[in-house]
Amino acid sequence: MSLLVVGSVALDDVESPAGRVTGVLGGAACHFAVAARHFVPVSIVGVVGEDFPPEHLEFLASRGIDITGIYSAPGRTFRWGGRYHASLNTRDTLFTELGVFETFKPELDAHQRASDFVFLANTHPSLQLEVLSQVASPRFTAMDTMNFWIEGTPAELRQTLQRVNGLILNDEEARQLTGEYNLVKAAASIRALGPQVVVIKRGEHGALLFDREGIFAAPAFPLHEVVDPTGAGDSFAGGFMGALAHEGRVDSETLRRAVVYGSALASFCVERFGLDRMRDLARAEIDTRYAHFRALTHF
Amino acid sequence: MSLLVVGSVALDDVESPAGRVTGVLGGAACHFAVAARHFVPVSIVGVVGEDFPPEHLEFLASRGIDITGIYSAPGRTFRWGGRYHASLNTRDTLFTELGVFETFKPELDAHQRASDFVFLANTHPSLQLEVLSQVASPRFTAMDTMNFWIEGTPAELRQTLQRVNGLILNDEEARQLTGEYNLVKAAASIRALGPQVVVIKRGEHGALLFDREGIFAAPAFPLHEVVDPTGAGDSFAGGFMGALAHEGRVDSETLRRAVVYGSALASFCVERFGLDRMRDLARAEIDTRYAHFRALTHF
Repeated sequence: MSLLVVGSVALDDVESPAGRVTGVLGGAACHFAVAARHFVPVSIVGVVGEDFPPEHLEFLASRGIDITGIYSAPGRTFRWGGRYHASLNTRDTLFTELGVFETFKPELDAHQRASDFVFLANTHPSLQLEVLSQVASPRFTAMDTMNFWIEGTPAELRQTLQRVNGLILNDEEARQLTGEYNLVKAAASIRALGPQVVVIKRGEHGALLFDREGIFAAPAFPLHEVVDPTGAGDSFAGGFMGALAHEGRVDSETLRRAVVYGSALASFCVERFGLDRMRDLARAEIDTRYAHFRALTHF
Repeated sequence: MSLLVVGSVALDDVESPAGRVTGVLGGAACHFAVAARHFVPVSIVGVVGEDFPPEHLEFLASRGIDITGIYSAPGRTFRWGGRYHASLNTRDTLFTELGVFETFKPELDAHQRASDFVFLANTHPSLQLEVLSQVASPRFTAMDTMNFWIEGTPAELRQTLQRVNGLILNDEEARQLTGEYNLVKAAASIRALGPQVVVIKRGEHGALLFDREGIFAAPAFPLHEVVDPTGAGDSFAGGFMGALAHEGRVDSETLRRAVVYGSALASFCVERFGLDRMRDLARAEIDTRYAHFRALTHF
């Protein structure tokens, strides 16, 4: 099964108690693809500026990721800077320079339009809908969103939600979107809006999956040290969608395994800055961590 | 196996978004015993004042709890008042009137001294140690503590920790006790202080068990509504210690099942005010919820 991700390709500056990095490869689509590549062929559709270092594209291509959908536009690449506090649960966004991402106009080619699994990373909900309308007959579509769109473009967001099969978001976003503090109620409200598969990410507390069979709770992998949480959510989505596309069917059993793979990929992502841990991650390491998740939750 | 709990018997005033109650039966030892009674015979050692309504003692006795260790002293019963906010994760303590609990001097009788399993609910660590010294040859001892003792009596607390097999505390307490934000590191630090079994409770995010075999993560049961979190931690401890005492042996397998039973009892406790949900809880309901925990975590 083929997997398509549409979203940001970025250059990040990150500070955390463990150190700092500048200008490293980031963006939702990159974190997603670098996680999902272990399971199925992945295509990225995105945009970069004239300042984008060619070695980043070479890296993505060298890992088997289809980058023909990443086009270059006049201007600067999307740049984001953030600083994490000691708890690593809170961060200050130091700057967001949209650059060429502000006028991102994804045009899918024939191959991309035929994608089986599609992930719409965090962008304007109308753009997400526009991408969706270009895909011929996807088997499973999922999206992310954020507080900015929940507040700023609620009508557009609801329209897009009606059209996707799955929504992956964090607990605060779920609460903001529905006005429900209780996550069981929030998930029920979201399912009433459209997506029948809802995954609520809770950072160090793991993730909850809500589908027609009920609820699945997965812990986060207990790590001795978290270096950089940037991209954890997108790595989760990449592992989740990748595992699902690999299985080729979407039911409660495959969704649960996909949540665990997502959690595994996210746990690797945060072990080092940027994509450093993901760069040369081996499939065997993922399988070992998956087995550790079993040991962690078995009773 | 016999189970002993030593700790507070109280009268609580509680306000939450769901309503308010005044003068209801509470206290760590009561919440513990009412949860643990489903598994093994439980004895409470505690103190009440002259104002304590006799029907509360009759209720405890009617549920098979041995209350011969609850003595009456001149003065008022321990009273606590608290108000929960919309999130139910934070509360304001409105008042704490220690009353007769301030001069609580537990003297165990022959039967209590022969207890197999012992839980030292939250009190002064020196009092916990004094109780422990009265128990002849317990198979497994565990304790709770709180920020007040971690800050105020660190030396006494360390002395007591050296003598117990298990510590059950919440995430903030684990961080405060060890100075480690990361819970994996915090648990390792606690195990170095004495207790080889560490359970870190995370409220709505579940619980983590650390023992010599590694880590076990249990989610909290996802509820549609939480009415009153008071006593959830002690219900957890009651279910945990009760299930462990029922199995009669302490190893990684029985500890994991005990954490799930503890989580199940805590999930019932918070469904209504005070002990209302626990009053007539049936063993069959506990077993059903245990099965739901399996369904919730199975992959």
